[in-house]
Amino acid sequence: MAFTLPVYQPPDFTRPPLSQAPLATFAPVVQAGIAPENYHATTIFPEYYRMKTGHWVLLENSRMDCVVVRGPAGLLVREFHHLEAGEQVVLGRGENGEEGIYVHTGAFAQPPAPHEKFAFRTRRSRETSFSIDYDTLYDLLSHEREHGFTLWVVGPAPVFDRDARRALVSLIRQGYVHGLLAGNALAVHDLEASLWGTALGQEIYCKRPVHLGHYHHLDALNQVRRAGSLAQVMESGLIQEGVMHALWQQQIPYVLAGSIRDDGPLPEVITDVLKAQDAMRDLSSRATTVMALATQLHGIAAGNLTPTYRVSPRGQVRPVYFYLVDMSEFAADKLANRGSLAARSILTNAQDFLVILERGLSGR
Amino acid sequence: MAFTLPVYQPPDFTRPPLSQAPLATFAPVVQAGIAPENYHATTIFPEYYRMKTGHWVLLENSRMDCVVVRGPAGLLVREFHHLEAGEQVVLGRGENGEEGIYVHTGAFAQPPAPHEKFAFRTRRSRETSFSIDYDTLYDLLSHEREHGFTLWVVGPAPVFDRDARRALVSLIRQGYVHGLLAGNALAVHDLEASLWGTALGQEIYCKRPVHLGHYHHLDALNQVRRAGSLAQVMESGLIQEGVMHALWQQQIPYVLAGSIRDDGPLPEVITDVLKAQDAMRDLSSRATTVMALATQLHGIAAGNLTPTYRVSPRGQVRPVYFYLVDMSEFAADKLANRGSLAARSILTNAQDFLVILERGLSGR
Amino acid sequence: MAFTLPVYQPPDFTRPPLSQAPLATFAPVVQAGIAPENYHATTIFPEYYRMKTGHWVLLENSRMDCVVVRGPAGLLVREFHHLEAGEQVVLGRGENGEEGIYVHTGAFAQPPAPHEKFAFRTRRSRETSFSIDYDTLYDLLSHEREHGFTLWVVGPAPVFDRDARRALVSLIRQGYVHGLLAGNALAVHDLEASLWGTALGQEIYCKRPVHLGHYHHLDALNQVRRAGSLAQVMESGLIQEGVMHALWQQQIPYVLAGSIRDDGPLPEVITDVLKAQDAMRDLSSRATTVMALATQLHGIAAGNLTPTYRVSPRGQVRPVYFYLVDMSEFAADKLANRGSLAARSILTNAQDFLVILERGLSGR
Amino acid sequence: MAFTLPVYQPPDFTRPPLSQAPLATFAPVVQAGIAPENYHATTIFPEYYRMKTGHWVLLENSRMDCVVVRGPAGLLVREFHHLEAGEQVVLGRGENGEEGIYVHTGAFAQPPAPHEKFAFRTRRSRETSFSIDYDTLYDLLSHEREHGFTLWVVGPAPVFDRDARRALVSLIRQGYVHGLLAGNALAVHDLEASLWGTALGQEIYCKRPVHLGHYHHLDALNQVRRAGSLAQVMESGLIQEGVMHALWQQQIPYVLAGSIRDDGPLPEVITDVLKAQDAMRDLSSRATTVMALATQLHGIAAGNLTPTYRVSPRGQVRPVYFYLVDMSEFAADKLANRGSLAARSILTNAQDFLVILERGLSGR
Repeated sequence: MAFTLPVYQPPDFTRPPLSQAPLATFAPVVQAGIAPENYHATTIFPEYYRMKTGHWVLLENSRMDCVVVRGPAGLLVREFHHLEAGEQVVLGRGENGEEGIYVHTGAFAQPPAPHEKFAFRTRRSRETSFSIDYDTLYDLLSHEREHGFTLWVVGPAPVFDRDARRALVSLIRQGYVHGLLAGNALAVHDLEASLWGTALGQEIYCKRPVHLGHYHHLDALNQVRRAGSLAQVMESGLIQEGVMHALWQQQIPYVLAGSIRDDGPLPEVITDVLKAQDAMRDLSSRATTVMALATQLHGIAAGNLTPTYRVSPRGQVRPVYFYLVDMSEFAADKLANRGSLAARSILTNAQDFLVILERGLSGR
Repeated sequence: MAFTLPVYQPPDFTRPPLSQAPLATFAPVVQAGIAPENYHATTIFPEYYRMKTGHWVLLENSRMDCVVVRGPAGLLVREFHHLEAGEQVVLGRGENGEEGIYVHTGAFAQPPAPHEKFAFRTRRSRETSFSIDYDTLYDLLSHEREHGFTLWVVGPAPVFDRDARRALVSLIRQGYVHGLLAGNALAVHDLEASLWGTALGQEIYCKRPVHLGHYHHLDALNQVRRAGSLAQVMESGLIQEGVMHALWQQQIPYVLAGSIRDDGPLPEVITDVLKAQDAMRDLSSRATTVMALATQLHGIAAGNLTPTYRVSPRGQVRPVYFYLVDMSEFAADKLANRGSLAARSILTNAQDFLVILERGLSGR
Repeated sequence: MAFTLPVYQPPDFTRPPLSQAPLATFAPVVQAGIAPENYHATTIFPEYYRMKTGHWVLLENSRMDCVVVRGPAGLLVREFHHLEAGEQVVLGRGENGEEGIYVHTGAFAQPPAPHEKFAFRTRRSRETSFSIDYDTLYDLLSHEREHGFTLWVVGPAPVFDRDARRALVSLIRQGYVHGLLAGNALAVHDLEASLWGTALGQEIYCKRPVHLGHYHHLDALNQVRRAGSLAQVMESGLIQEGVMHALWQQQIPYVLAGSIRDDGPLPEVITDVLKAQDAMRDLSSRATTVMALATQLHGIAAGNLTPTYRVSPRGQVRPVYFYLVDMSEFAADKLANRGSLAARSILTNAQDFLVILERGLSGR
Repeated sequence: MAFTLPVYQPPDFTRPPLSQAPLATFAPVVQAGIAPENYHATTIFPEYYRMKTGHWVLLENSRMDCVVVRGPAGLLVREFHHLEAGEQVVLGRGENGEEGIYVHTGAFAQPPAPHEKFAFRTRRSRETSFSIDYDTLYDLLSHEREHGFTLWVVGPAPVFDRDARRALVSLIRQGYVHGLLAGNALAVHDLEASLWGTALGQEIYCKRPVHLGHYHHLDALNQVRRAGSLAQVMESGLIQEGVMHALWQQQIPYVLAGSIRDDGPLPEVITDVLKAQDAMRDLSSRATTVMALATQLHGIAAGNLTPTYRVSPRGQVRPVYFYLVDMSEFAADKLANRGSLAARSILTNAQDFLVILERGLSGR
């Protein structure tokens, strides 16, 4: 079934109060990294700013909890720590035009459900039906393969299991993965599986603990560090398969963001978290769909970085889809409670999710 | 791949202490439903009792936490509330022959894992690899289809989802389900899906809440109650598909055990829990594999009723496999903590489990 | 701080559409246990029915998912299986007066929260602040001690822990418990603790497994069954302390409802679940506050039985409070998804909850 | 009750095989950051190395998954990325002396539990009794206040709740906190609570969402960043209470480790994760007890950094206690599955844990 994007419904700027709204105001950054008083902070929604000409300008490449500065070619969304002295920052916290800012929350409104005085099952949980989510994902990810950018955010669990790992590799090979955000662990345990068929010393198929298997991830790290980079390891032919190998072979961009749990780490891991965020945002700013699997840390980080919409080079606005696959209602709600209201959660084991998804997409 | 059952290793009764053990002793039930002091209680393991001739007799059709009485044709495992005055009950709590009783815990011993001073990942969790469990289940359930009895214990969640429900129906039709234990809710919501495509008023595919959908399960109950039985509803042609329909069509025995949460209930629901236990045990005593999905109540009850072994009519002893599929480590550990040590847990959503299992088994 | 009940806001029957609503209609039960077509089913909210005189009659002693019959002295809420041939059942599914029925969902409306386009933390989870819930409970339960009826619904976990068990006993002794709903397990493990200081064979303080401790709960069951009843065991002096002892001493009514997991069971356990529901409803119909701790089975059953309001003998309407204490967001959401929207969940271990609550209430 | 440390039981080096073990061997680091082939990796247990003189040297300040180098004054435990060219690294993976290395796993052996063929409840879960853990903690933390170093590892949840936050502040003031590991979020939301009584815009007592409350954490960050440091904010008098204030007032060392989820961040946050690890290890190497509350990220990181023993300046060896407080069995098992076998888990909400602990310790 062909996938149809919902149509963007822009605000009506011809009517009050927006037609009578003042211009957005600015104040300079006095000290690098510090916003002026009364700065405006961004949300995940499309936001419009009334500029000099009276025109409303839509923010592009937005993300949550940043400020907006006037750049040479338009408005820019800027993290606080990137603010430079002298930059002009948008002021104002009104969201309905009263300070020249409009936060557009109903841009892709869904048809409302029938109103019931009494209804069961209003929240997603492990007992929610997910068949339609799989079918939607088959259509959506097929669409994105041609027309979009699907960014995967993946915890280490999928490479602990043979079938899930194979499914992820297959999705990469078939073109369903345009970028990947992960940590050191995903890469290390994937390499461990490539080299010895284990993860943390346990065989990823038959679960047998291997003698001295707790050395495997350290040996994998040491070997890559000696080679200098993952690319060099791949070129050397030492690694013949796996997730990292498929990413390398298909030249898929990825970011390995560091965390305080990391051993090693691999040379590609960005150990400074602010630099890692920048690199993640380089990818997330291209994303039209985000698939976050079995990682609270990277999933919430990606949620912070990803707005609910994307503006194409030709100015068209489309929604950004965000799927979260996790075993726990708490993790799913946590992303919702962080304000990432648009995330759709699928409560299941990411292993099984990958296996089913790959079968549904294969041969399309 | 053909499935091979592990070989039973009986105790060596020719050597001390077992060769020198006394005979088992008995005392009569004085008051119905009450065991004599120092009664012996059964475990989930094979247990042997030294009888008059000096012969050791293996308990058949055992279950946990019962007593053993001398019947006309051998030893019987009896719930306390079924004890009748005058019955002779085995006494003694020694488990190593000292009182004529031997509890045989190592009957199907696994090859030991290599001893490590230090190893990761010794417990099953959502991050455990489950690929081999799926492959094993394909072989095991195919074997059981020809040679065994696979008993399913199922919570209502699988019928809340279109694909999971279809998968369960397909497994029934293909002969992988020989008996089913469930509650009122599974049956009612399955019928609701058959009649209106909803569960608790929400469409099982597209999740839309239906106007006045909270009446659906009550209407389903009322209709079946009016018809008199599920069988009559099926014969009337009102229900054309679904889990209950497939069970009826294939003449698969099932028990619907009552609980205090029940609405209605359906005429087939056994509202007395002790009678329900008896009916469940009639099925569980035939089981060679138990598949418990997404139900703590029925899963633990089945765990209580099911021993780790089965004795064939020709006296051969084989293991009984017990799989538990649940989203929470707590639920899995709870069964283990109840003493059902032999249960293997698969941490995932039962919906996805069913979809994957059905695909793997179809066409075998 | 004195607790003040929110004021009930009855519907305005003097204005359309209610002033112009037709009378409620009835149809007879033809076959016992079966409702006539188009029966009306009850919710957890106050419901009004327009009777002959044009008067609107408020349903008393309501519960979810039942039908309404005309009794000699007014309307009665009746489970389907209790319907008798000839009884007159209210018809109609309109909830806004169009069929003489009005479901009053906004009876105790809370002041609305400020509308935000964007806000964090809209759902309760383990990271929600619960300080105010404790303080509210101190006030509420103190109020109920004098003026209400606090019904406790308790899983077995609290008697597995010394401090939690002591806290529950103390709450009973101090008058904060007016009724209790539980299963066989709570009572059995409490007796096991009274007799041997263990639960399922493990010491409830120092967690040491006791030799042959898996006999303890069976021995406790056997002893009570021999005595004939819990009351006789208490009178015999065998049991000197514990939850069941305190209930007996304070003459607090309780219901032990059977389940298919039960061993024994104790003589007081009601093994027929429909009879158990009736006994539970006898208590829940008196409840003004329900405290459900660490039990999905009994908690959801109590949720089904308990409406959101209570009508006093003098016709005053007050809210019924329902608190659910559980470790898992899933369990909390499940009650909400069953329609018991008014339940307030506290995500924590019921052990700690009891310890804190008891300290806060002691000495009031 | 006075707390008594278990006595360390050193290996017997006078008997074979240890008495006949070869000396440990070394190889040089050729390339900085890369270990030589066949390096030995450390565990969490005491490890002994046979040095030139034939003497066995116990590793001090160990941690998991590192290598051992020969320093000027003895052996040093070194992360791979800190290895410098020319350093001499211990080789060998035998753990029983065969290569001059002995991993001593039974140093503080517990008395064995009675062996049972059959026992319930062998795993910790939310239904485990924790009374003795609280009592032990009262004694242990009182002991540590005088003689040890209690390091707290805390997620943000405790500052989301008024009572839990007060309890943590009280523990700091009373001397039960000697160091703290946390992330940006704990500090930011604590400051938000100090300034406006909210966390992520929701009042930490009455849970009311505050108008434009999603600005609060950003405003707190911006203010501290303008001031230059937390210390300067404290000295300015702007912040009068809270966790960070108490740490500052009591001059308790802490590390705020960066993560990719961070907004801001605060000036004190160490954004490079390897530098953050170094700072964390500076504290963890002094720890005699670790209390990890409601944080998987920091809890597992601390688990990696903390061995099971500590060597005093006078050479005495004592155990290091590691407690993990979390709502989910998965999180608790995850730490165990990472090899941190010595961690004791308490399954509850960290808020309630803190409230109870503080009450039990106050006034000692």
